[in-house]
Amino acid sequence: MDATVTVIDPVAALAELAPIGADPVRGGWSRHLLDDADRDMRAWFVRTAGSLGLTVETDANANQWATWAPEGATGPAVATGSHLDSVPGGGPLDGPLGVVSALAAVSRLIAEGHAPARPLMVANFAEEEGARFGVPCLGSQLLAGDIGTERVRRLTDAAGTGYPEVMMAAGYDPTTIGRDAARVAEMALYLELHVEQGCQLAPLGHPVGLATSILAHGRWRLTLTGRGDHAGATELVSRHDPMLVAGEAIRSARGHALGSAPETRSRATVGKLHVVPGGSNAIASEVRLWLDARAEHDADVRDLVARIVSDVEAAGLAEGCTVTVEEESFSTRVAFDQDLTDRVAAALAPGLGDVPRIPTGAGHDAGVLAAHLPTAMIFVRNPDGVSHSPLEGAAEPDIRTGVDALTDALRALTSERGT
Amino acid sequence: MDATVTVIDPVAALAELAPIGADPVRGGWSRHLLDDADRDMRAWFVRTAGSLGLTVETDANANQWATWAPEGATGPAVATGSHLDSVPGGGPLDGPLGVVSALAAVSRLIAEGHAPARPLMVANFAEEEGARFGVPCLGSQLLAGDIGTERVRRLTDAAGTGYPEVMMAAGYDPTTIGRDAARVAEMALYLELHVEQGCQLAPLGHPVGLATSILAHGRWRLTLTGRGDHAGATELVSRHDPMLVAGEAIRSARGHALGSAPETRSRATVGKLHVVPGGSNAIASEVRLWLDARAEHDADVRDLVARIVSDVEAAGLAEGCTVTVEEESFSTRVAFDQDLTDRVAAALAPGLGDVPRIPTGAGHDAGVLAAHLPTAMIFVRNPDGVSHSPLEGAAEPDIRTGVDALTDALRALTSERGT
Repeated sequence: MDATVTVIDPVAALAELAPIGADPVRGGWSRHLLDDADRDMRAWFVRTAGSLGLTVETDANANQWATWAPEGATGPAVATGSHLDSVPGGGPLDGPLGVVSALAAVSRLIAEGHAPARPLMVANFAEEEGARFGVPCLGSQLLAGDIGTERVRRLTDAAGTGYPEVMMAAGYDPTTIGRDAARVAEMALYLELHVEQGCQLAPLGHPVGLATSILAHGRWRLTLTGRGDHAGATELVSRHDPMLVAGEAIRSARGHALGSAPETRSRATVGKLHVVPGGSNAIASEVRLWLDARAEHDADVRDLVARIVSDVEAAGLAEGCTVTVEEESFSTRVAFDQDLTDRVAAALAPGLGDVPRIPTGAGHDAGVLAAHLPTAMIFVRNPDGVSHSPLEGAAEPDIRTGVDALTDALRALTSERGT
Repeated sequence: MDATVTVIDPVAALAELAPIGADPVRGGWSRHLLDDADRDMRAWFVRTAGSLGLTVETDANANQWATWAPEGATGPAVATGSHLDSVPGGGPLDGPLGVVSALAAVSRLIAEGHAPARPLMVANFAEEEGARFGVPCLGSQLLAGDIGTERVRRLTDAAGTGYPEVMMAAGYDPTTIGRDAARVAEMALYLELHVEQGCQLAPLGHPVGLATSILAHGRWRLTLTGRGDHAGATELVSRHDPMLVAGEAIRSARGHALGSAPETRSRATVGKLHVVPGGSNAIASEVRLWLDARAEHDADVRDLVARIVSDVEAAGLAEGCTVTVEEESFSTRVAFDQDLTDRVAAALAPGLGDVPRIPTGAGHDAGVLAAHLPTAMIFVRNPDGVSHSPLEGAAEPDIRTGVDALTDALRALTSERGT
């Protein structure tokens, strides 16, 4: 036992984070890349990892890393972690639960005197939600070299501030972002714990589950341009109102997702929509809306989006509006590493029984890394499945069971000698 | 001739106003009650009216008044004017053209040595567009006692700032707002010049027209509440997505307006829509949208809105979302004073020919005042009819012709002895 280290209680740690980025307008939490809230979350990460004696670094892509490499730990590391940013008005657990659980697990391993054969790294990935710059998993994609750095340097946030400006203001050099082969090579594997999104574990009666796959998914920005005019004085037949086209996009997204073959697990959502100029007595001149589409296989998503866009273009033609479509991101279907998942399952306490293996529709940094190294995920039961909402939650015993599971898995994985 | 007064050129005056409140995001101009731009517009009004030697006052409802009452001018005044606020991202002429033309007309009457038998007042009405607090013609409605002051004191803007707070910050006492019987009694009549909204004069080949009536119109705020959730992880059948209900509202508004009897001149528009939380990968928890509905008669509007709301409620039921509807404003049909309109027509230069008399779908302070005193309107041709848009415009010769017409009308009306 190492009595000098305080074991981190995950519930207390989440309570400590609760005031940071609370959103008085939307409810829930808004923590976006390098804004005040995100900086406070990052400071917490540095402080907490530091209190465990870990070495804390930030890479050029604004991802944070805390490394535990006591004497005898050699070779590529076992990596774990998640992200501390949120969607606008999101819940408390996606993804702080993964980071908190990782640090809690490391604190337990230290306290119990575990002597790891490999280093253990805890990651906080930047801009996982893509809420500020529109590209999800931005930090892990940059790290892995999965996104062009020129494209990233052209990204702007809703206020028009460029990614380079935001990075420079926080002390980063935006000319050095991008693929970090050395950092990727340092990781033997990546295991991410995350609150469940969707409701598969509750009906099965299990507090934790293991991920099998992530649906293929992407985001498309549709710009619908009409002609702004007076809502009272303009004859209906003279209108070019992009709101009508937006209404059709919403209807069509649901309709085509519902109409897809059930085995494709297709879903399509319009959750973000901006109206220009946005006056109640003014016909809109432009509507920008974001289409989120997901399905089992890449081709299912492509097909779904093509059908929706075709409807939107027809509606645009009918209304005399132009339609432009820009793909903001596309994430191919992910199958997690079955061997690693089996090893994690084998490490879990026998009392957990036969832990369910479930697919998910949500994207994760683990999904990005899966193309580069063996990757697995542990899900913690979400009683009603709600996520990306202030109503997201997990029971305290389940949160603690999640940390138990992650601790057991990390102990086992770091006991195996690295190559 | 009074050589001490400089005649105001309306085109030059509009050019002077052009930098104020230019909206770099939406395009056009955004000037809302007592914001920086509106305060600059108000300062221009004070300065310009002052340069003509007019007496400038501001009433308790934040309307500005400039009075020309030389010796011999007695009895109730001939009032003219318009408003200097705008919709978000609006055009340059609605309503600065009316205020600029009024001051230009007064400057000409002074310069030519006209001796008015009645005072002449130029008004700048506050918050005509209702862009900040949601209630159009707020200043004139308060003046006339057409809106409850308690309700007005509860209004908040998009940032959550209350009307009283905004008024106090600008030096007004919000406890003294409301009906101003003395000010209303000071006016014998009100004649407002405004850029045409819609396109009736261009096909008729006339640079100016006179208003006959304003469609009945109102604004309704629909709050659609569902359940925020993850756009990727939530099964379609488990969703309560208020965006779907919003899409139906947009579709239904257009459909029922189109399906109404043509003689009702029905129109319905959704031009403002807010999504909460507004993340691209989050199902919305709430959508607030504003329905603008207009038709020839009050009952036509009521019927139109009832049909749309019925559709929206059915869509809400189907999606498991709640729907609440709040009427933000309702303006009954206005018929302008025919006798006053005839007197204005008779005063116009013979070269203008038989000036068209046209109805409008747009609300105006003149419409509010019409219930309290004889009121008429002059419209200046809008070549393509676009308004509430940066594309709104009028040809310079038409702007000058409008000032000519207003000058002729005001000269004639102030030559008649007041009672």
